[in-house]
Amino acid sequence: MANVTDWLDKVKWAENGLVPAIAQDAASGRVLTLAWVNREALARTVETGEAHYWSRSRSKIWHKGEESGHVQKVKSVRIDCDEDAVLLEVEQRGGIACHTGRESCFFQRLEDGRWVSADPVLKDPREIYRS
Amino acid sequence: MANVTDWLDKVKWAENGLVPAIAQDAASGRVLTLAWVNREALARTVETGEAHYWSRSRSKIWHKGEESGHVQKVKSVRIDCDEDAVLLEVEQRGGIACHTGRESCFFQRLEDGRWVSADPVLKDPREIYRS
Repeated sequence: MANVTDWLDKVKWAENGLVPAIAQDAASGRVLTLAWVNREALARTVETGEAHYWSRSRSKIWHKGEESGHVQKVKSVRIDCDEDAVLLEVEQRGGIACHTGRESCFFQRLEDGRWVSADPVLKDPREIYRS
Repeated sequence: MANVTDWLDKVKWAENGLVPAIAQDAASGRVLTLAWVNREALARTVETGEAHYWSRSRSKIWHKGEESGHVQKVKSVRIDCDEDAVLLEVEQRGGIACHTGRESCFFQRLEDGRWVSADPVLKDPREIYRS
């Protein structure tokens, strides 16, 4: 009988225990975020059906949307040919993935040698993160 | 007058000099690859309009498609809010990004606790990489 965590063993975790995790919006196709998962974060993501990441700045598991309500409901989990990167197809609650209030964290586009903000702020961050 | 490499200085390169680079197909919206760029690879990508990555296994710049012909024509370059990940919107020559002959490297999907190959092989790798 296959061990229930075999699929986690197949991931080629880096020395720091992490692999990059891309979240892509299932409806719009936009790439929303590039975050990181460790074994526990990926396990929780699959168990709960909501994206959990490893916060490198806070050194702890981070349930995306725990403060903002902008959780990511996971529709599918994919892994690449090298098994060292994962892709989450998600339903983005609130339509906002970025802490700046934008749909995607990838809102800066290179134009004539400069990074230019290319996407609108959909909601004031002060309204997203109430103290 | 702005230095022409200011935009490269703004990238928050990791200690190993790299950041992850996602390639997304401009037409299909599929996430094709997660690779890595260093300063030189990203500069060459922008200069040439074709994706260049840093090969961690070979420790050298890798012009994607140099052997297979499956180059990635870059339509836009984006960076995320933390400035430590980039997103390339590409036109994938041959419609195949993966060395296995599939459209995307993310062809394995988690189903009932197992990674299952979910996408067809479009071309036999032996036909892609002729010796």
